[in-house]
Amino acid sequence: MNLTQQILKKISENTEIVGIIGLGYVGLPLAVNFAEAGVKVIGFDKSEAKVNKINSGENYIKDIRDAVLREVVDRVTLEATSDFTKIKNCDALIICVPTPLDKFRKPDMSYIESACEAIGKYMKTGTFISLESTTYPTTTEDFMLPIIEKESGLKHGDDFWLAYSPERVDPGNKAFHTKNTPKVLGAMTEEGLIIGEALYSKAIDTIHKVSSPRVAEMVKILENTYRLVNISLINELALLAGKMDINIWEVIDAAKTKPFGFQAFYPGPGIGGHCIPLDPFYLEHIAKRFDFDLSMIHAAGHINMRMPHYMVIKISTALNRQKKAINGSKILFLGVAYKPNIDDERESPALEIMDIVARKGGTVSYSDPHIPVVQSHGRAPIHSIKLSPETLADADCVVLTTNHDAFDIEFIQKHSRLIVDMRNMVKEVNDKIYKL
Amino acid sequence: MNLTQQILKKISENTEIVGIIGLGYVGLPLAVNFAEAGVKVIGFDKSEAKVNKINSGENYIKDIRDAVLREVVDRVTLEATSDFTKIKNCDALIICVPTPLDKFRKPDMSYIESACEAIGKYMKTGTFISLESTTYPTTTEDFMLPIIEKESGLKHGDDFWLAYSPERVDPGNKAFHTKNTPKVLGAMTEEGLIIGEALYSKAIDTIHKVSSPRVAEMVKILENTYRLVNISLINELALLAGKMDINIWEVIDAAKTKPFGFQAFYPGPGIGGHCIPLDPFYLEHIAKRFDFDLSMIHAAGHINMRMPHYMVIKISTALNRQKKAINGSKILFLGVAYKPNIDDERESPALEIMDIVARKGGTVSYSDPHIPVVQSHGRAPIHSIKLSPETLADADCVVLTTNHDAFDIEFIQKHSRLIVDMRNMVKEVNDKIYKL
Repeated sequence: MNLTQQILKKISENTEIVGIIGLGYVGLPLAVNFAEAGVKVIGFDKSEAKVNKINSGENYIKDIRDAVLREVVDRVTLEATSDFTKIKNCDALIICVPTPLDKFRKPDMSYIESACEAIGKYMKTGTFISLESTTYPTTTEDFMLPIIEKESGLKHGDDFWLAYSPERVDPGNKAFHTKNTPKVLGAMTEEGLIIGEALYSKAIDTIHKVSSPRVAEMVKILENTYRLVNISLINELALLAGKMDINIWEVIDAAKTKPFGFQAFYPGPGIGGHCIPLDPFYLEHIAKRFDFDLSMIHAAGHINMRMPHYMVIKISTALNRQKKAINGSKILFLGVAYKPNIDDERESPALEIMDIVARKGGTVSYSDPHIPVVQSHGRAPIHSIKLSPETLADADCVVLTTNHDAFDIEFIQKHSRLIVDMRNMVKEVNDKIYKL
Repeated sequence: MNLTQQILKKISENTEIVGIIGLGYVGLPLAVNFAEAGVKVIGFDKSEAKVNKINSGENYIKDIRDAVLREVVDRVTLEATSDFTKIKNCDALIICVPTPLDKFRKPDMSYIESACEAIGKYMKTGTFISLESTTYPTTTEDFMLPIIEKESGLKHGDDFWLAYSPERVDPGNKAFHTKNTPKVLGAMTEEGLIIGEALYSKAIDTIHKVSSPRVAEMVKILENTYRLVNISLINELALLAGKMDINIWEVIDAAKTKPFGFQAFYPGPGIGGHCIPLDPFYLEHIAKRFDFDLSMIHAAGHINMRMPHYMVIKISTALNRQKKAINGSKILFLGVAYKPNIDDERESPALEIMDIVARKGGTVSYSDPHIPVVQSHGRAPIHSIKLSPETLADADCVVLTTNHDAFDIEFIQKHSRLIVDMRNMVKEVNDKIYKL
């Protein structure tokens, strides 16, 4: 029995051990899904805090039900560890580490690199390896493969299989979660594709196979570039509409009645989160190596980068109506999460707007029912305040930055002196409301 | 009974006369819809050829069934004329004239202008006027209104009503046609909105009212800008994918499996037709008056303008593989319509590619089952040739420019020596196939 047959046999008998590297909002739900299917899962993370939480059955990802996590941990189907030598016990390794941009907006490949080094160092012969982190096309074949082969001394195709299968996790999405969202899979060899499909089918309902890792890498970038470009387009049109005395929200609602060929996107203070504002720049990065200039991504990135600054101008314009300046005014921000009803403020434009306003001399406070404290750009931590008639009335300007369902918009409107609404939360228009 | 009550009474009794100005692919279906509802319709067009055709029951728009046109003409519910003095007989006037770009890609408002002049000269008091042509926001209020008031000496609000309701006709769409596509309507006054809704409801199932003509104008531009931007994005990504040895068609098919937040667009030789390549530049035009630079539309327009040139490079690269140049080669284009299964070659990128290839010394021919003859840029007319084993084999390069269902791709593949496929019509890949 060759290595391919061996691993396929284990998978069919449910005796394989799956290692998940990186236990964040992608890795942990995937680990839980495998564990629920009765597969023995080892979750790897450098953060001992996360490891300890998981091993004591404590959940820190909103999209996972606490009871489900506790159950798989109790049954010891899922175990977390910071000990990467345990990679040697795994038949399959799935990498779910972050791929951020560095301060110069260049891909930071260090997390993938160190995962590959650990894998190369500790893995056994006959391991299936899959990367889920969003990255530029060619990463799996040209970046990962050499590191793993060098560290392990093993040879791809003979001794192990490498694949790419992008995560499509949409935090807070009630309809689509890890299991029922179709998964794209591209492997370097036919055997890798067969093994990957057999394995992933336990945790995911539908596997869509493509001809290579680079195609799969491009798929994820296309999906998120589509979103960046369209949100940037509507943001730009919103800024123009404001000048032309056109309510862009009314325009979008009407355009949505077209039953074909249109998908609605909404303007806002900028794009946040860990995917849409970052992924397209991974492509822009690799495109340069092919002497290619991505003008659409470039234009979209430019608009998105400028949005928080435009939003500060909106705040300043609104205050100016009341003969006030940002400097010396109290500005209260409602919502710092990057999208509604989640507890994640990564890359949130609200933070950047708060930061600029503070630099300009405004007194900044915020309220977010999902995020008790924030700390941005090395400043002192700020704590979420409780909304009351007094806290609202105390602010010279209330800025609606995130449309959490928890916000009682009538209450907010009643007690605020001036509102800058970046999310179309206030439906009526009057001279104390200033809309994007 | 005031003027508003008078026209509403006529509409409720089905005794109003509706004038439709411009009997093209928008105006004629609309005229037929009103006539089918038993409304007396006068169709106005400067082209005597069109007028004579309609009056003899001869249909020239594919989306209208011949029998339906003949019936409404026979019943004399629909009558066409080039005599614009008959405007005085109409209670409502709907303008469906072209709004092209001039040679410098600036809006050519002359058709709307001359329609407004004719209306102002001949209309009676108490007429409802609606523009359907795509145009920049503010056109109805700031461009049309002054012309009509000046020519007529009448006053808007007291003597007539002005509205904007963008056409959403999608030629060749089997599911959505004029009647069942929701229609956006914005009027300058509440009375105008009420009259417009009552009137349009006879020809259209769903009317979506907005607060002003400029909102309605922006709606249409947003819909088509969305398409221009997304097609340009995927065209740009296709060009990069080509360099990276990634099959963009496979990428799109895989991305489509994402069940939320993605809409698939496909690359091609450029954008044709009378809407998508033009409408966004109407907005770009007016934006300048508001000191606003639309970077997304600009970037998208640039890509679209360059696509035919890139396609010529593809043809040249494919021929080069066989040690041939464009100069001296026979190039056969399959399809000149701007989209599949229609007989419209306006703004079709195929024509521009053919033109460039001819200028470079290629011998150009084409075959299109829907378009028997084309004439571009003042050149001599070219006639569609019949596809046969001989005509295909005679070409040094066969270029697939439009994916008409009528094309037998296996037959084409069998007899062609070299194929440049811009529409993903050939599924297999080999060295006589060159794909976008």
